[in-house]
Amino acid sequence: MSDVYVIGTDMIRFGRFPDRSVEDMGAEAALLALKDAELGIRDMQALYCGNMGEANRSVGQRIMQHLGQTGIPVVNTANACASGATAFREGWIAIKSGLYDLVLCVGVEQMGRGLLGAGASYAGVPTEGLVGSGTMPSMFASLGMEHTRKYGTTLEQFAKVSVKNHHHSTMNDKAMYRFETPIEQVMDAEMISYPLTKLMCSVNVDGAAAAIVCSERKMKQLGLMARAVRVRASILQSDPYTPHNLAMMDFNTVTRLAAGAAYEMAGVGPDDIELIELHDCFATAELMHYENLGICADGDAGALIDSGETRLGGRIPVNVSGGLLSKGHPLGATGIANIYEVATHVRREAGARQVPGARIGMTHVVGAGSSCAVHILEKA
Amino acid sequence: MSDVYVIGTDMIRFGRFPDRSVEDMGAEAALLALKDAELGIRDMQALYCGNMGEANRSVGQRIMQHLGQTGIPVVNTANACASGATAFREGWIAIKSGLYDLVLCVGVEQMGRGLLGAGASYAGVPTEGLVGSGTMPSMFASLGMEHTRKYGTTLEQFAKVSVKNHHHSTMNDKAMYRFETPIEQVMDAEMISYPLTKLMCSVNVDGAAAAIVCSERKMKQLGLMARAVRVRASILQSDPYTPHNLAMMDFNTVTRLAAGAAYEMAGVGPDDIELIELHDCFATAELMHYENLGICADGDAGALIDSGETRLGGRIPVNVSGGLLSKGHPLGATGIANIYEVATHVRREAGARQVPGARIGMTHVVGAGSSCAVHILEKA
Repeated sequence: MSDVYVIGTDMIRFGRFPDRSVEDMGAEAALLALKDAELGIRDMQALYCGNMGEANRSVGQRIMQHLGQTGIPVVNTANACASGATAFREGWIAIKSGLYDLVLCVGVEQMGRGLLGAGASYAGVPTEGLVGSGTMPSMFASLGMEHTRKYGTTLEQFAKVSVKNHHHSTMNDKAMYRFETPIEQVMDAEMISYPLTKLMCSVNVDGAAAAIVCSERKMKQLGLMARAVRVRASILQSDPYTPHNLAMMDFNTVTRLAAGAAYEMAGVGPDDIELIELHDCFATAELMHYENLGICADGDAGALIDSGETRLGGRIPVNVSGGLLSKGHPLGATGIANIYEVATHVRREAGARQVPGARIGMTHVVGAGSSCAVHILEKA
Repeated sequence: MSDVYVIGTDMIRFGRFPDRSVEDMGAEAALLALKDAELGIRDMQALYCGNMGEANRSVGQRIMQHLGQTGIPVVNTANACASGATAFREGWIAIKSGLYDLVLCVGVEQMGRGLLGAGASYAGVPTEGLVGSGTMPSMFASLGMEHTRKYGTTLEQFAKVSVKNHHHSTMNDKAMYRFETPIEQVMDAEMISYPLTKLMCSVNVDGAAAAIVCSERKMKQLGLMARAVRVRASILQSDPYTPHNLAMMDFNTVTRLAAGAAYEMAGVGPDDIELIELHDCFATAELMHYENLGICADGDAGALIDSGETRLGGRIPVNVSGGLLSKGHPLGATGIANIYEVATHVRREAGARQVPGARIGMTHVVGAGSSCAVHILEKA
């Protein structure tokens, strides 16, 4: 199997767009990615579209209707918050198979049209949502408290994640929020589910992102080596065990398994990774995932955020885009927006938030119910 | 790229099961297919799950929860009535890529829980549904009338499709209906949208089907050659042009393009095909698709149904399972149920409805909004 490359990628600015449809946003992201690759929609041989809220409403085909229908195969994928990453991975598999040389991957979500409350019940167990214990904030609050109990992680340490990611997003003109949040502001914000205040929960926004994957042969033929980004690993993993309902999945185990498989596929270790876009759906999650992705030992996540090493300028910047906490989290778009962010850094095109000298980075998403996708990207 | 084989496949009896969930039905179909292959769920390396109604509710993962979670990648695909065929094709691509040797593909639909009315609006243009012109029966009624105008096709000829497919399903213990429908009964049934009476419309049922795809290497290693079925072609196609909304797709063009590509990939022609399971969502559609799939010349579909050649015992039996008209049409399950039917015939295991001597067959589905999938299967 020859290598697969990202040769074009972009995203729309995340925000609240009640008047924009999934096809409108998805088509814009696709056009931006096509422009980035200097290709047209007629060059694409297949479309993979990740979306959650309207997965059963032919989202990919509607995007093609906007872009100019060409009759290519369209596959709609749904894997909760990993829907976009799943679409990207299916595109990668399709290139690997040798069937296609150029595949468009789009992730998109219109959160404002009724999806906001879906978190409570999308695992098919509505009772949990009704009684509150199965909502995402309460679940990640519990996971944070478990971390505190085991390792003494403090509220301040969780809050620092939000401070860092909001700071990062001040340098990202595609982020929803672009303001600093001093730690007092984060800690004094409305309490959602202890220890999570409102500023420690990801932002519900609408958005879309796109990436074009390409075979090695075609990439060279098109002369796109200069900006091509190699996919060194693409892993999708579901939970090997779920206690009693799918929403209560074990986000830790599934991430550890996926990260381990990704490092193995890429032939690299955590020390080789120079930036990470990880699934900070809540501030507690970012600290858990430091340990799950192996960038610090178990129990050291609090110390790692204290050290500043995961801030831009540190040893391994995490969520330089602003992350889900401040850039925003349009479910189906997030996985591909992460790809865009890491690709932009390893291409050295990230402007003020550029991770200096970055050549290799990782993306990570988890979807409740359950999926975890990890990708490792490297400058070709 | 080496060949890909179906080494196990089965389906649950289609019917109305208001108390059964998608995970319940999907898991049963998966277990039946695993039993057919004499393999266990732990042998599967990935799951592709096609479903329409609950595509955004982690259907594949819920099935894995029932089967015994193993942590394998789970991908949920949604492509309207082609959702199951799309899942099967993604499994085929995954084997082609060399990433996996054994992949489980499941198609499932619970139609009774609110999906019945979805046909009117699932292309995202609810207005069409409200005014009636965009409902599926009226669309396929119009297409039938166009055939009548161009070629003089008669109401009797359309009705004969239903007579034939109901007859076939009397021999299929997995079909929803198992009774003969004399032509007078078909023509005198409640008129839905001229020329379609109720018995000329597909049956809304719940159901699930599963197929296990396998690499050539693994198939030989497992010693499964005796019953293995080779996938000679797998094509997915979207509409190259849609007039004004996706529900009004051009089912004819998309089928012609997909069939042409499938014949090319398989290196065979219509004369080589010995049975077809095609998308008889309405009686008019079957006649259209005779021409679209190339088994008769344009305008000759009426004569072909009159000739009896597409009936069991004829030259090229079509929908020997009973088809969507009588076996039933649980959207996401249909594509894989077709695979099961053709595989069963080329394995010579179809009992009373066996197409004598069949070695090669074709499956065809169209999904509004728009997708067409065509597969050609041959006894290994």
